[in-house]
Amino acid sequence: MSTPEFIKIVEVGPRDGLQNEKQLVPAATKIALIEKLAACGLPVVEATSFVSPKWVPQMADAGEVLAGLQRRPGLSYPVLVPNLQGLERALAAGVQEIALFTAASEAFNRKNINAGIDESLARLAPVAEQALAQGLKVRAYVSTVLGCPYQGEVAVSEVVRVAKAVAAMGCYEVSLGDTIGVGTPKKAVAMLKAVAAEVPMPRLAVHFHDTRGTALANVYACLEAGVRVVDASVGGLGGCPYAKGATGNVATEDLVYLLHGLGYTTGVDLEALCEVARWISAELGRPPASRLARITAN
Amino acid sequence: MSTPEFIKIVEVGPRDGLQNEKQLVPAATKIALIEKLAACGLPVVEATSFVSPKWVPQMADAGEVLAGLQRRPGLSYPVLVPNLQGLERALAAGVQEIALFTAASEAFNRKNINAGIDESLARLAPVAEQALAQGLKVRAYVSTVLGCPYQGEVAVSEVVRVAKAVAAMGCYEVSLGDTIGVGTPKKAVAMLKAVAAEVPMPRLAVHFHDTRGTALANVYACLEAGVRVVDASVGGLGGCPYAKGATGNVATEDLVYLLHGLGYTTGVDLEALCEVARWISAELGRPPASRLARITAN
Repeated sequence: MSTPEFIKIVEVGPRDGLQNEKQLVPAATKIALIEKLAACGLPVVEATSFVSPKWVPQMADAGEVLAGLQRRPGLSYPVLVPNLQGLERALAAGVQEIALFTAASEAFNRKNINAGIDESLARLAPVAEQALAQGLKVRAYVSTVLGCPYQGEVAVSEVVRVAKAVAAMGCYEVSLGDTIGVGTPKKAVAMLKAVAAEVPMPRLAVHFHDTRGTALANVYACLEAGVRVVDASVGGLGGCPYAKGATGNVATEDLVYLLHGLGYTTGVDLEALCEVARWISAELGRPPASRLARITAN
Repeated sequence: MSTPEFIKIVEVGPRDGLQNEKQLVPAATKIALIEKLAACGLPVVEATSFVSPKWVPQMADAGEVLAGLQRRPGLSYPVLVPNLQGLERALAAGVQEIALFTAASEAFNRKNINAGIDESLARLAPVAEQALAQGLKVRAYVSTVLGCPYQGEVAVSEVVRVAKAVAAMGCYEVSLGDTIGVGTPKKAVAMLKAVAAEVPMPRLAVHFHDTRGTALANVYACLEAGVRVVDASVGGLGGCPYAKGATGNVATEDLVYLLHGLGYTTGVDLEALCEVARWISAELGRPPASRLARITAN
């Protein structure tokens, strides 16, 4: 028996998950969520986002959440930062890691930030530069890597180009996101391998949405192809703003079940994590979107 | 480009799906369900079960369902038959194919039919023999292949032994069922390969439950290992009698989405199938358990 390999899970529930919630979640609940997730053994918990409160009112309390958070030594609590203004707020809040966001789809970028791919990259470059100069770690999300809600197909070459560009900005990790959950395993692996030819595999993460039920199949295929970092959201928090009624982020607890079953280690206490999934789902007034947390919910 | 390979989907919703429904579904609804599924292009639609109405009241109308059914030429409508009495009823109803059921778990067989594995096999042998003598095709289910709700672990050697035994009875296809949905891809493949060493892969089917979200990942891994027949249930019908609140059979529409995304053909019209999933779920008064049918339900 060889030593089990470690898969790093990046928990995105408190940010990517909650940002689509219409009902405002109290800062105290967000803080409790982050701390409970950290207590489960998750190594990275994305905490909040310094986007404009005008665009995402749910994240208006980013400073308050970070101020109230008991941070554990050795854990990362990245925050999403869209621009230099957001970076200033993040620095004022004492963050040590930020995440940048762009898309491999021209149409998605235009709808999302009213700029094409090239302009999006041009806007992110100084944010990365200043963050690095301040000693922060910088992660990057490249979204719509397997399809776009506006333009449909996204060329793998565009994904490679954008991933390479953010990696060149000094982002230590690039998370490749199937934002609308259209991916299937072979296409996911083809995309991953194409990117890995330019940005080394250890610097890549995969980020799947379970909109069509394929997220864990995609994760499995990408693990087989060598990826070792996977994003997920406790309780499947997040929904999908592009498809009403649809499932969003793959649930962290379903992912952990898969990973442990495959013989990987994650450092995560699965039972405790299911408790957190049920707790936050109850706070939001709905059943968990994960298969696993539902079983023992009765 | 090579010719896309065909994956045979065995639709089990009308039998395996509905049998766990507490509320009695009218025979007319069952007939409509089977006919709608056939109209989607599914090659095999398991129609009903000739179990004792005392044990499964939902299937008491098996004869009525078959009598009312417009059968399409070229399609198979197998029915589950537990014993010689069931076979007589099935023959009287004019069926052309039956399915037998047993488990690879000693404890499961004892709880389910009050007999161990060997006695279960001894009881099935004459059913298979007489069915074959009457010119019927015979399929077999081997359940609890990756775990048992009563004994926990199930040895792969037991799965192989039982699969080999039912294949030796003349069953043309053996469906390997993860009855409680505990499987993960590597364990599923190890089990499948062990069985395939004794019963050739073209005679094997896989049957996964999505209780913990891993069904499609398991399907993908088993396709990569060579299986070409997959059981599924429209709308994820079926629940799981062993875990309250849990998801049951993998949803046919999620499976079709995966298969088409992988470049396989199935003959199934996915959009029409999603309509059927939404229709039967509405008839049962609940949202579809599949990811896919939920998206467009709004």
